[in-house]
Amino acid sequence: MKILKGNIIYTVVPEKFEVYENSYLVEIDGKVSGVYKHLPEELKDVEVEDFGDSLIIPGFVDMHFHAPQFQNIGLGLDEELLPWLEKYTFPEEAKYDNEEYAKRLYTNVAKALWKNGTTRAVLFSTIHKNGTKILMDVLDKAGIGAYVGKVNMDRNSPDFYIEDTDESLEKTEEWILETKDKYELVKPIITPRFVPTCSEKLMKGLAELSDKYNIKVQSHLSENEGEVEWVKSLHPEFNSYAAIYDGMGLLNDRTVMAHTVHNTDEEIKLLSKRGTISAHCPNANYNLSSGIMPVRRFLDAGVKVALGTDVGAGHQVGIYKVMSQAIEASKMNWFYNGKSEKCLTTSEAFYMGTKAGGEFFEKVGSFEKGYTMDALVINDESLGDKDFRSIEERLQRFIYCGDDRNIIRRYVAGKLISEPK
Amino acid sequence: MKILKGNIIYTVVPEKFEVYENSYLVEIDGKVSGVYKHLPEELKDVEVEDFGDSLIIPGFVDMHFHAPQFQNIGLGLDEELLPWLEKYTFPEEAKYDNEEYAKRLYTNVAKALWKNGTTRAVLFSTIHKNGTKILMDVLDKAGIGAYVGKVNMDRNSPDFYIEDTDESLEKTEEWILETKDKYELVKPIITPRFVPTCSEKLMKGLAELSDKYNIKVQSHLSENEGEVEWVKSLHPEFNSYAAIYDGMGLLNDRTVMAHTVHNTDEEIKLLSKRGTISAHCPNANYNLSSGIMPVRRFLDAGVKVALGTDVGAGHQVGIYKVMSQAIEASKMNWFYNGKSEKCLTTSEAFYMGTKAGGEFFEKVGSFEKGYTMDALVINDESLGDKDFRSIEERLQRFIYCGDDRNIIRRYVAGKLISEPK
Repeated sequence: MKILKGNIIYTVVPEKFEVYENSYLVEIDGKVSGVYKHLPEELKDVEVEDFGDSLIIPGFVDMHFHAPQFQNIGLGLDEELLPWLEKYTFPEEAKYDNEEYAKRLYTNVAKALWKNGTTRAVLFSTIHKNGTKILMDVLDKAGIGAYVGKVNMDRNSPDFYIEDTDESLEKTEEWILETKDKYELVKPIITPRFVPTCSEKLMKGLAELSDKYNIKVQSHLSENEGEVEWVKSLHPEFNSYAAIYDGMGLLNDRTVMAHTVHNTDEEIKLLSKRGTISAHCPNANYNLSSGIMPVRRFLDAGVKVALGTDVGAGHQVGIYKVMSQAIEASKMNWFYNGKSEKCLTTSEAFYMGTKAGGEFFEKVGSFEKGYTMDALVINDESLGDKDFRSIEERLQRFIYCGDDRNIIRRYVAGKLISEPK
Repeated sequence: MKILKGNIIYTVVPEKFEVYENSYLVEIDGKVSGVYKHLPEELKDVEVEDFGDSLIIPGFVDMHFHAPQFQNIGLGLDEELLPWLEKYTFPEEAKYDNEEYAKRLYTNVAKALWKNGTTRAVLFSTIHKNGTKILMDVLDKAGIGAYVGKVNMDRNSPDFYIEDTDESLEKTEEWILETKDKYELVKPIITPRFVPTCSEKLMKGLAELSDKYNIKVQSHLSENEGEVEWVKSLHPEFNSYAAIYDGMGLLNDRTVMAHTVHNTDEEIKLLSKRGTISAHCPNANYNLSSGIMPVRRFLDAGVKVALGTDVGAGHQVGIYKVMSQAIEASKMNWFYNGKSEKCLTTSEAFYMGTKAGGEFFEKVGSFEKGYTMDALVINDESLGDKDFRSIEERLQRFIYCGDDRNIIRRYVAGKLISEPK
């Protein structure tokens, strides 16, 4: 049991913040048992950790992160997508069959997630089974909750970084069996890279594994116009990109699809019907000139939308930074698309980066009773005068202007986590 | 005389970086006397400050910053422009007739500029003469180079924050006389807020003062579509927004205009002809849903384009952050405007944030011989492996992923400056 005191702020619905000034967040067995303005009588003897005027918020959830690309963030961004993949991404990913290298670099990833208050993440590793297990070990030790995916790719990939279809499926099944019950907060997720690099046989085989072991799925969908065209030429028998995943049995409510920048209304309806989550990655979409995801259309159609950094195409690890970029992107979408789709508000972006992503981990990302207690303590003294600011304004200012220095505590499932070594 | 050793990188032209690995930057009397791979014989006895594997780059130049709005960064950004001005901006600016308040808050501004390596800035203060002089004092003491403007506004402004035309001109002349020769690196700049809040008489009077004392001019031009329409309705006798400033005598090569998001080709030609600098502020343009400045069209037309944070509509003080946002904005402009206008490269954005803005201060923003020596030392150890990265890549990574912690020294006109108190 733990009691934290401070200015507690979180979202239950996207439209508004719940604010409890100078209040108590009570945790029992890793779950939130309540938020109280006045502590109930029966808790009067429990020790309270008092964070004074700090903010207490749910931990951040990153729904799309390529762990081996962390090494490359902020590099090669004058290149177009294909040369960027060839020059930076694939050669770097190929290195992760070296276990020592994987251990060292993945520890840097865990440190960066920790620093930036990402308490839950959905990650791509590489095609290497052992490298993937190392990433899972590192995150488990760090106490960070995660779905980690061994990447599958058996076509249209460089010679030095491609799999044989049968071996890919075999290794994936082995890896699922080795890891699905191994860790408390770290789980395997099935990870076909994207349609262009995965044969029909591979995708169908992965869907079977997902069904057989009840394993979640992640992939990319409609990031870039060139990619969409390519996919169309590879599969003229399907009437959309999303329909291909659906036809392979990969589109359901265990699935997260990154990007979804260029989807038809029909595809959006399909995602909504299937209960698939979309991981919106505005930072990466800017960097690779992909365009802007029309978030409002997805929300209006009932699609769940969460946020992803998409490291390494995205150059920032902080989901709080992605929140402000999602708002900015929605403003540009408003501006350039007929000024009809309403911009995101701060509470909506915050909801996307906490509770919407948290649903993928079940009850995570809010302080409602029964939710797993992932929390951050934010000291915003460095960000300017607090006296005349509401708690909402102070949170907004942290989202726009704060950085990892303002995050002074990180809890995952009720447990204080310290910097990974 | 000073000699700094490190990996020296800067731009002479926008198209490419000049790179001197492990080299010497020699300063005499505040000016760069040369960059050397091997130190000339006659300098062999001069002490060298060796920064090892760090980068040495020119200081950053911020061409548009509202000092009294620093207090509000990251706030109110769910609001539209007009409510934002009414709720946050004007009430805050009105406070700066309190000299104690001005001193305290402007010291925060100087600290933020210092932290983020902004060695030169062009700032708006408020309509208050004494508050403006306090800002100039604070910046002078901090050793930061600046043009500081007392704001003029005599129409369409709130009752509590408006001037009488004659008094505005009188006070402005007094202030010019009191400050134009007072400081070495801090100078007054004439600052009509923008056309909607300045009568013709005021603008013409300010143009006369600018001519009489050879004082530079700053204002806003075509930030927002609603503003452009408003200006058109106020001055139907002119055929464009830029033509109004020109007709008032305010558009010349001593002038910087912030934003220039919505200008016709004719206006762009006029800016080019007059030698007026444009201050591109992508961060603010996103936040206030203003649109994206088509930078390439300005560059192709021969307009000088530099960068501004536009604090407080912009929420970030680091010009390095504005560089990456300018690149991102150019990518979105490319995407949404027919894919014809080439995106900015990293060297172009760096040039805009150093040498292009530096020209407003005469020879500033480069390490060419004879340039004033404004320099930053960047330690990028925290940003990842250096071993396999070129100096250009390391600078790019700092621009995208770095922050003030990576800036370990700041020099202005050859002088090391320390954190303002």
